[in-house]
Amino acid sequence: MKTGKTFIISGPSGVGKSTVLRELLRDRDDLYFSISATTRTPREGEIDGVHYHFINVDQFREMIQEDEFLEYAEYVGNFYGTPKRYVDEAMAQGKDVILDIEVQGALQVIGKRPDTVRIFIAPPSWDALEQRLTGRGTDSPEKIQKRLVRAKVELQTADTYDYFVINDTVENAVREINAIMLAEHCRPSERMEILQ
Amino acid sequence: MKTGKTFIISGPSGVGKSTVLRELLRDRDDLYFSISATTRTPREGEIDGVHYHFINVDQFREMIQEDEFLEYAEYVGNFYGTPKRYVDEAMAQGKDVILDIEVQGALQVIGKRPDTVRIFIAPPSWDALEQRLTGRGTDSPEKIQKRLVRAKVELQTADTYDYFVINDTVENAVREINAIMLAEHCRPSERMEILQ
Repeated sequence: MKTGKTFIISGPSGVGKSTVLRELLRDRDDLYFSISATTRTPREGEIDGVHYHFINVDQFREMIQEDEFLEYAEYVGNFYGTPKRYVDEAMAQGKDVILDIEVQGALQVIGKRPDTVRIFIAPPSWDALEQRLTGRGTDSPEKIQKRLVRAKVELQTADTYDYFVINDTVENAVREINAIMLAEHCRPSERMEILQ
Repeated sequence: MKTGKTFIISGPSGVGKSTVLRELLRDRDDLYFSISATTRTPREGEIDGVHYHFINVDQFREMIQEDEFLEYAEYVGNFYGTPKRYVDEAMAQGKDVILDIEVQGALQVIGKRPDTVRIFIAPPSWDALEQRLTGRGTDSPEKIQKRLVRAKVELQTADTYDYFVINDTVENAVREINAIMLAEHCRPSERMEILQ
């Protein structure tokens, strides 16, 4: 049976990653979208096991000690992490796994599992990214400029990523991610055994 | 403008490579199938510039000296080679290039152009390959056994290839090759400049 592969998908704020991931996941039941564990309090409407695995700080620390995370980070006083367990279960079922994480988290995952494939979703241009951030209407001009600077820094640190997908249209981005996932399943390491 | 990429497609005798390539090329005018130069005499119906570039031995030797081949070999007293010129012209036009060459020729190409992507078309199983060779009805049982041994040797030497495409059905093989070609155009090296 086919074994699943893990794909990290990163991208700067405003690039449209959520929309791309939603479209990608819609028609594929052979894909598992990894749900993070966190110590923060659930917000209104958030469901345990759907939006996050909500756990307490002691549980989180114990999982760190037991090496049960592919990556984790502390952010504004709360812990967030990717539990190995669900990823491994999905891969054992032959599913590919999507990790929606940042560049720093991706480095941690690669340290533990170098065969993880990293895809960076990039905007077609900086102007396009600025327009999208402005169009959302949620951020002040100063905040938008900060996000743009951060996006450029992220892109620089993402130059070791395996693939860059340009989100010019959601359809193109999804098509490219699907192609990358299929291509990565054509690696000799996955196929030599067929011909022993 | 997009620059083309070169893809080597290799595979053992009987694997169905010609059919896969024909289907692959049928609907894509952005693909250039490289035509070899040869010193052998044209056979009935063969057209210069379509089946081969037919040249004489002096011309061939001069092209070797001028380093005008991506790879070449001598086979049963005749030279065969891949001229750089047409490959470079097609790539400059933004076309991807397919080189239908053997594992040894592929090594020569990689030596000159390490960014060439190598795809090996493999049978779904050795039994399937044997059945196809038998089904063609053109080879004696002894010759079929020789071809099988040769295919296994080729596969061993192809373990450094970038991709293995299993030709279980032509449709699947073509789909995988198209995915590989699209994925390879998502490499950071091709896309960093968009975001400078």
